[in-house]
Amino acid sequence: MPKLFFGIMFSMGNNSFGKLFTITTWGESHGPSVGVVIDGCPAGLFITVEDIQATLVLRSCGRAYTSARKEPDMVEILSGVFEGQTTGAPISLLIRNLDTRSEDYLDQKNIIKPGHAQFTYLEKYGIFDYFGNGRASARETVCRVAAGAIAKKILDVSGIKVVAFLHSCGNVSLTEDFSILDTDSLDVLRRKSPILCPEEAVSNLMLQEIQKALEEKDSVGGIVEAIVYPVPSGLGDPVYDKLSANLGKALFSIPAVTGVEIGDGFLSSRKKGSEQNDSPYLKDGKVGFLSNHAGGIVGGISNGEPIRVKVSFKPTSSIGKLQKTVTIDKKDIHHSFIGRHDPCVAIRAVAVVEAMIQLTLVDALLLQRCSRL
Amino acid sequence: MPKLFFGIMFSMGNNSFGKLFTITTWGESHGPSVGVVIDGCPAGLFITVEDIQATLVLRSCGRAYTSARKEPDMVEILSGVFEGQTTGAPISLLIRNLDTRSEDYLDQKNIIKPGHAQFTYLEKYGIFDYFGNGRASARETVCRVAAGAIAKKILDVSGIKVVAFLHSCGNVSLTEDFSILDTDSLDVLRRKSPILCPEEAVSNLMLQEIQKALEEKDSVGGIVEAIVYPVPSGLGDPVYDKLSANLGKALFSIPAVTGVEIGDGFLSSRKKGSEQNDSPYLKDGKVGFLSNHAGGIVGGISNGEPIRVKVSFKPTSSIGKLQKTVTIDKKDIHHSFIGRHDPCVAIRAVAVVEAMIQLTLVDALLLQRCSRL
Amino acid sequence: MPKLFFGIMFSMGNNSFGKLFTITTWGESHGPSVGVVIDGCPAGLFITVEDIQATLVLRSCGRAYTSARKEPDMVEILSGVFEGQTTGAPISLLIRNLDTRSEDYLDQKNIIKPGHAQFTYLEKYGIFDYFGNGRASARETVCRVAAGAIAKKILDVSGIKVVAFLHSCGNVSLTEDFSILDTDSLDVLRRKSPILCPEEAVSNLMLQEIQKALEEKDSVGGIVEAIVYPVPSGLGDPVYDKLSANLGKALFSIPAVTGVEIGDGFLSSRKKGSEQNDSPYLKDGKVGFLSNHAGGIVGGISNGEPIRVKVSFKPTSSIGKLQKTVTIDKKDIHHSFIGRHDPCVAIRAVAVVEAMIQLTLVDALLLQRCSRL
Amino acid sequence: MPKLFFGIMFSMGNNSFGKLFTITTWGESHGPSVGVVIDGCPAGLFITVEDIQATLVLRSCGRAYTSARKEPDMVEILSGVFEGQTTGAPISLLIRNLDTRSEDYLDQKNIIKPGHAQFTYLEKYGIFDYFGNGRASARETVCRVAAGAIAKKILDVSGIKVVAFLHSCGNVSLTEDFSILDTDSLDVLRRKSPILCPEEAVSNLMLQEIQKALEEKDSVGGIVEAIVYPVPSGLGDPVYDKLSANLGKALFSIPAVTGVEIGDGFLSSRKKGSEQNDSPYLKDGKVGFLSNHAGGIVGGISNGEPIRVKVSFKPTSSIGKLQKTVTIDKKDIHHSFIGRHDPCVAIRAVAVVEAMIQLTLVDALLLQRCSRL
Repeated sequence: MPKLFFGIMFSMGNNSFGKLFTITTWGESHGPSVGVVIDGCPAGLFITVEDIQATLVLRSCGRAYTSARKEPDMVEILSGVFEGQTTGAPISLLIRNLDTRSEDYLDQKNIIKPGHAQFTYLEKYGIFDYFGNGRASARETVCRVAAGAIAKKILDVSGIKVVAFLHSCGNVSLTEDFSILDTDSLDVLRRKSPILCPEEAVSNLMLQEIQKALEEKDSVGGIVEAIVYPVPSGLGDPVYDKLSANLGKALFSIPAVTGVEIGDGFLSSRKKGSEQNDSPYLKDGKVGFLSNHAGGIVGGISNGEPIRVKVSFKPTSSIGKLQKTVTIDKKDIHHSFIGRHDPCVAIRAVAVVEAMIQLTLVDALLLQRCSRL
Repeated sequence: MPKLFFGIMFSMGNNSFGKLFTITTWGESHGPSVGVVIDGCPAGLFITVEDIQATLVLRSCGRAYTSARKEPDMVEILSGVFEGQTTGAPISLLIRNLDTRSEDYLDQKNIIKPGHAQFTYLEKYGIFDYFGNGRASARETVCRVAAGAIAKKILDVSGIKVVAFLHSCGNVSLTEDFSILDTDSLDVLRRKSPILCPEEAVSNLMLQEIQKALEEKDSVGGIVEAIVYPVPSGLGDPVYDKLSANLGKALFSIPAVTGVEIGDGFLSSRKKGSEQNDSPYLKDGKVGFLSNHAGGIVGGISNGEPIRVKVSFKPTSSIGKLQKTVTIDKKDIHHSFIGRHDPCVAIRAVAVVEAMIQLTLVDALLLQRCSRL
Repeated sequence: MPKLFFGIMFSMGNNSFGKLFTITTWGESHGPSVGVVIDGCPAGLFITVEDIQATLVLRSCGRAYTSARKEPDMVEILSGVFEGQTTGAPISLLIRNLDTRSEDYLDQKNIIKPGHAQFTYLEKYGIFDYFGNGRASARETVCRVAAGAIAKKILDVSGIKVVAFLHSCGNVSLTEDFSILDTDSLDVLRRKSPILCPEEAVSNLMLQEIQKALEEKDSVGGIVEAIVYPVPSGLGDPVYDKLSANLGKALFSIPAVTGVEIGDGFLSSRKKGSEQNDSPYLKDGKVGFLSNHAGGIVGGISNGEPIRVKVSFKPTSSIGKLQKTVTIDKKDIHHSFIGRHDPCVAIRAVAVVEAMIQLTLVDALLLQRCSRL
Repeated sequence: MPKLFFGIMFSMGNNSFGKLFTITTWGESHGPSVGVVIDGCPAGLFITVEDIQATLVLRSCGRAYTSARKEPDMVEILSGVFEGQTTGAPISLLIRNLDTRSEDYLDQKNIIKPGHAQFTYLEKYGIFDYFGNGRASARETVCRVAAGAIAKKILDVSGIKVVAFLHSCGNVSLTEDFSILDTDSLDVLRRKSPILCPEEAVSNLMLQEIQKALEEKDSVGGIVEAIVYPVPSGLGDPVYDKLSANLGKALFSIPAVTGVEIGDGFLSSRKKGSEQNDSPYLKDGKVGFLSNHAGGIVGGISNGEPIRVKVSFKPTSSIGKLQKTVTIDKKDIHHSFIGRHDPCVAIRAVAVVEAMIQLTLVDALLLQRCSRL
């Protein structure tokens, strides 16, 4: 990570997420390894390396279509698990970076990539990292996904299921509403697609969209959708730890996110109250709802209906197409960047969205426990 | 606040926002008063009751068109300010609730309002509050706006300006891009409108939309937009205190929010990298950008360009129109709710969005100070 | 609060204590009122103004012997309690300052009091407060004691009792070990003494010590001891939220504290392992201990034995005796300060120590709840 | 780590310390490795493995006299440092456990060690760890000391020096006041002693005390003293982040600590105000103090005088002497425990006390930065 100057000396905190179930991630994209410490995990959960490995595979879904970087992400459990069970102590996970090939980046060592965090890091930290940009790299998200595997184990105990999938890729979107499906079926359907899109025909169209972007040395944006169901009512703490607020923070902390919607989202701004309100009715002596425009969260607290979230991802900023930019020694130039990049970050982000929701839910679940006598 | 049962006894935490510049709000919509304690405010700022009062007026903008509740919100400064200047000690603000008229709510004391937080509060806390629903009430946001007035004073010192305005109301939207205006002009324009919409013709159409909703005993959603400019580069702390992540949390913590976009938001998911990337160029020896699709935040850190945020509000859930619902003793009924409610919460939310952004920016500003040697 | 300069403009944060059961205090000794917001209190607790008032009376114990300031501290509950029960919402308590008599302080408006926080506040904040020194005043502790009354209600539900008492005053100390008494008897005994010393003869000697200090226009230090019993095992979270660590923070945050001991404290540093170790034995099928040198906390977690804590208080710095000092305009002088001050802060501190322990225990209790599935 | 039952499933949080400069430690005494993630470290500090290694050597001081465990603690820097300089990103340090020899512990696999955290861990977590007791082991403190080396680098920039030393061992104490020495000389003197005691004759007496304890298969307590000087005035944030309060938490979080004193500590409780107050006087136009009974902290804020702290350590609970105890299957027995243990934990704790003070000071230093405009 070559430096320009160190006059400012800011730190790059904060690298922890969660109040009671806390993850702390570390490591740079082109350093020897990345890792995460998970604190606040209850004892007695059965967890294996394979469980974590399975979520990392999800994150690498559609790799052939996304990035040329071929790392067999292998996780090591360094602490907190004894004979296959969590002990309650912090769980330290380490993932080595095997395929860093930094020579790929030599041609761009003084050119600012348009749309990339390089510029803001240079401005704030006085460091110009022409490699994968250290902490700003999507490489950090492998730690979130690994931690999500632990969170998932806790949600399993409570019967909570989270499934994310690719909702749109560029201008190609799902044509059906998959939020009404049960999450198990949804999980099966998405896994049939190499890019985690549960509607087969749409998945094929998306692959064409991606192929086209690759050929044009360009990239394409996308939307990830997630469903949480079953989910108990009562998760979320008003006023400032609303489940919606904490999901908002969790999802906007993912690189390349440009928007988050819960329930009907922006569509609800164009509706009337009589169209948006979900009317309660009695179903086997319990309160059900005739619709779910709210997306399972009302007043910041889950109401037991499926939680529906949509997350917008901008197209990958690193593209091979010729672009106007400047050098760090301040010259106007045009440049075509070479490198290994996902043509659509949204695909790999499916696993990251799922993990961040899992982490947020576990924290809400533990907070709920501690807020009563 | 009549109770049904107290078997669960959960607390309604967390009521604090911010890491270094922290606000803690308290008070119920129909109790004697609400208030906020502001902790971490630097000493030496000039602040008067009138400064705070001015922001409360902004929050009550379009009152005639929004709610029948006519409270002259008068703030009292109980601590932290001496002879017109902050001392560095916590600032305690108190606002009395003068006009609670709880008899209005007697007819609905056992009927669940569709779309309202009553149900989730009942489920979680075992309390059915047929008044204004205590902490879930938008009444709490008056405290955020009062605290925002203090945050604004700090931003003033750094030359940072935040202006929010009504972008859309139901299906009526601004036709021009006001994000390119300077914030002072934008402030003048929005104040000409009783509903804080800077485009006069559109403001009038919105008023018709609202009037129509009132006549139909219905309500309407809306979108609030906010611009931050001037703003220095370097605000925001990766990985989990990204400026975007903290804005996401701040804005999703506002009642009735259903979506948040930064920069081009969901539109960016439909674009190609070559369309989304903001190309740098040299402007008087400094780096400028040929576009601002990113909305002023890249990699979670401000880049010095205007920060653009859109926040979607659902229509007010409390409407007079006949609706299907259930009673708390579990009977299916249809009911028309009477009460004083904003036909469009987005109008009053303009001041709240502005305040939450101000609070988030001050925290980022102070965090930036402490992260260097 | 006259200011010298405001060049530095530091804030006086942090004014919150506790992770889940959080108190935030505000107000200056010579402002209109002081107050506290209690966040994270479970719903359903029965609490009245009288309950809180009773703890404030404890804090004013021995007033005749401690300070000339005669404020009938009357608490007002502004939120969070409805018809005598907590609702789960934040509880806002306000206590007016009725007797501020700031003219008493006019003669000392530019003289630094030896041993007082005035100097460090002047150095840090550039503010010289010749009144009661704002936030540094022991006045702030009335808020802790009021909040402690709420914490006590929660501990009552779990059957945990905390009793503090005056252990020593200057060179006069208890001659018997009161830590072996049951806490109810201890409570009765201490209340017989106007200075909360449970041993009658010693209490009388202490009163003589205090009287002597008053006559000499001097002050005297003291030690407060506290016993927690019954108390469940399992409170405290290693590694950094050890019960001992959080008690250490809680107690050292009280003004004038110079030392804290748990169990045998400094005495244990002079012992051998075979003398210090508390041997377990079987008592009715359960594990008991033959001694309690550890003071009820081992490895940072309570073991079910009585928790024993001692807190050292320095003598009040504000004394009438002639002292060498300097003026803020930097002249060497000798001065006799006039004012109303406790000759022994440790007496009034008994209630504060009790409150801080209660607050710490409630937080540990709630944290224990949330750390399991 | 053999388990008894997992019915309770508590987590062992919290494993993080510090608000802005945060360390998170992980790893068990008998697992493959331990480690620490340091978050919030400013960029641009020069740091090498050797710098950290040097503090680990300090922690192993007097090893011959303390423990038979002979681990060459070698630290690895996994992230956050590039070409010898910190980048601002989280610093991940890993230290392998090379010498775990768990077979030593087989004879005691169902016997509760008196005075040891085993019992409270068993009570809380349902896990009986007959090895080194996982997170409760002093092994965790190697991570604190490694992190302290980074903190020291930041303090160096600000010219702040912290030196800890052995003040007493059993009944043998320093005879001179070393708090008046400059810290550099003190550092030289303590390093001449294999047990970090700066007074040669006393060091020899202490070694005899330790030797005697070893021969008796017993252990002995001790007191660690620390001096911070030079140190700027203004560190510490009232009311609840007082420098004294945060030191109290930091020091009581160290295993085996039974008491903490600042300045004259418990002695001050026996004094009069006129004896305790430190009178200011003018020294070269600046304010100095005629004494330092306060130990450099007044009102929770440093006043620029040397900070003096004393920390009491109980004798090691693990001793070879025959002791009364019980088995986990509830039988009364007497047992002599075999194993490798420090006869006096206070010696090794010197480096840990130093590190915890350094970590606390860096956090206060960064907080001071962020609390001003």
